[in-house]
Amino acid sequence: MTDRPCIAVDAMGGDEGLAVMLAGVARARRRFEDLHFLLVGDEAQVRAGLASHPNLSAHSEVVHAPEIVGSSEKAGQAIRRAKKTSMGIAIDLVKQGRAAAAVSAGNTGALMAMAKLSLRTMKGIDRPALAAPLPTLGDNDVVMLDLGANTECDAQNLVQFAVMGAAYARIVFDLDRPRVALLNIGSEEQKGTDEIRDAAAVLKEQSHLPLAFTGFVEGNQLARGQHDVIVCDGFAGNIALKTAEGTARFVADLLKRAFTSSVRSKVGFLISRPATELLKHHLDPNNHNGAIFLGLNGVVVKSHGSANENGIATAIGNAAKLVRADLTRRIAEDLAEFERAAA
Amino acid sequence: MTDRPCIAVDAMGGDEGLAVMLAGVARARRRFEDLHFLLVGDEAQVRAGLASHPNLSAHSEVVHAPEIVGSSEKAGQAIRRAKKTSMGIAIDLVKQGRAAAAVSAGNTGALMAMAKLSLRTMKGIDRPALAAPLPTLGDNDVVMLDLGANTECDAQNLVQFAVMGAAYARIVFDLDRPRVALLNIGSEEQKGTDEIRDAAAVLKEQSHLPLAFTGFVEGNQLARGQHDVIVCDGFAGNIALKTAEGTARFVADLLKRAFTSSVRSKVGFLISRPATELLKHHLDPNNHNGAIFLGLNGVVVKSHGSANENGIATAIGNAAKLVRADLTRRIAEDLAEFERAAA
Repeated sequence: MTDRPCIAVDAMGGDEGLAVMLAGVARARRRFEDLHFLLVGDEAQVRAGLASHPNLSAHSEVVHAPEIVGSSEKAGQAIRRAKKTSMGIAIDLVKQGRAAAAVSAGNTGALMAMAKLSLRTMKGIDRPALAAPLPTLGDNDVVMLDLGANTECDAQNLVQFAVMGAAYARIVFDLDRPRVALLNIGSEEQKGTDEIRDAAAVLKEQSHLPLAFTGFVEGNQLARGQHDVIVCDGFAGNIALKTAEGTARFVADLLKRAFTSSVRSKVGFLISRPATELLKHHLDPNNHNGAIFLGLNGVVVKSHGSANENGIATAIGNAAKLVRADLTRRIAEDLAEFERAAA
Repeated sequence: MTDRPCIAVDAMGGDEGLAVMLAGVARARRRFEDLHFLLVGDEAQVRAGLASHPNLSAHSEVVHAPEIVGSSEKAGQAIRRAKKTSMGIAIDLVKQGRAAAAVSAGNTGALMAMAKLSLRTMKGIDRPALAAPLPTLGDNDVVMLDLGANTECDAQNLVQFAVMGAAYARIVFDLDRPRVALLNIGSEEQKGTDEIRDAAAVLKEQSHLPLAFTGFVEGNQLARGQHDVIVCDGFAGNIALKTAEGTARFVADLLKRAFTSSVRSKVGFLISRPATELLKHHLDPNNHNGAIFLGLNGVVVKSHGSANENGIATAIGNAAKLVRADLTRRIAEDLAEFERAAA
């Protein structure tokens, strides 16, 4: 699309407030010097906040939005006043072509609904999916989808998610032929639901597409680095994602408890702090931030609600990468190829 | 049932072989001095293995089984020669009343199928479920079911799992009124599938039963210690369980990598070894071993295939606890109470 992407930012969304959001955008601007921004929110508040970020000020424009989507507001309700909210206006700027992508840390359900209504689903896609990168022991992260946008999915949805996920992995992880697996409860052919088995049968035949279907993957293999894309329905994806988050936190809490259990452990902990900091860095969700709704005519990225400055900058960096690589066009090409072969 | 329970052990099942299995049983015998055992397997091999365990020898009997169920053998195939296999004979000893429980580390699908066919499902239960304790930050473990026996479940299955899981938690965790939650992708009422919402509606009305329904729980809250029983279909349960296992291993691998990244970290690691050993102890699956098939007329416990001596002893200890507390009768009573109230 463009080499100097313009990103629309919902400056009012997220649990951390406007100041953290602006600090994150300012950090993104320092990291990626060619970006410029449309900051959507209450004009007076955004301008006041910008005072401490002269570099960002010089490369952004403020777009006034009188209203905010509540964090627990129902999507149906939020949609009715979309055009007045910072979230809805940020998405609309993408639709108008004024921005190449929109980034929000606000209410996920409302963001999905507004994005779908405003940008519409791509030709060849029945349902958009929420995709996000997760850390692994391998050379790159793994992208997982759907993470909760569609509670139940049929085989065709899963196949479409695979095609879209592979396009994402090619761009973000710089791969030629990402390894794509279906999340299942066993690796044998007869395992799982009809939907999963049917999707596997279709994906096995796609050797003409730029992806390598690697069969079924179980929950204990997600982070091993043996797959680049993991496809599932939104229920399973949400359970897996949140269980992984919860378990990582559980282990970290146990570790903390163990390290403070004696003076000796405390001393050991202090000495090995660089190691535990490395671990913290690797597990910090802010270093993997930026879920994307794949399958829309435009790039909409969802940041964690509780993302810090670094997390917001990461999400914006991901959005810019997808824009530069022309994600939407690439997905469209793969879908067309898939349909040609199927015809 | 009895204060000196007899446990039938499938001596040939599991990945670690007969020697580890016998060492595990011998350890269980040392831990629980009133237990005695029926050791099912190739008679010559079992007797040879027993030579190094005189205490176990004195409190066990060998039951010959000419065949073994293969670890990747299909359940349908295994069932046809059930009466000749160590697994099938161990279960049959429970049916005959010669043993109070059967323990196997072999093929889960075959064990489930054989147990269901031989012992039959309890009155009031449509489908048995696989349940296992998982570690938490709280005072007791949490029992989760179903972990993979039933890929898809209706609301009635989920309600029955809740009743059975609560009976288990009352016995194993020594609670009066276990807190029971349904695994879901959000805590709001409208979240999830019809099956889950319908099950929630039924469970809300069960204040006469010895359980406290606490609503929906998300994947990131499983280990927080706020619930005693977590109910889900076998697909979600399997995904959550394996994702938790995989994530714990992932974090441990990262930690290992971090601790060996410099001399300083290595020194810190050595000093704080008691702390990391504590963590290892808490996370070691062998300390939480022993999944049980709930809803059968008899106690059948599945040990991890790769359990070590300690893991096998833990699984046998759990089986003995359930036998002593008369699990099957307690579940039957709760089911009768549930049906009385529904009538």
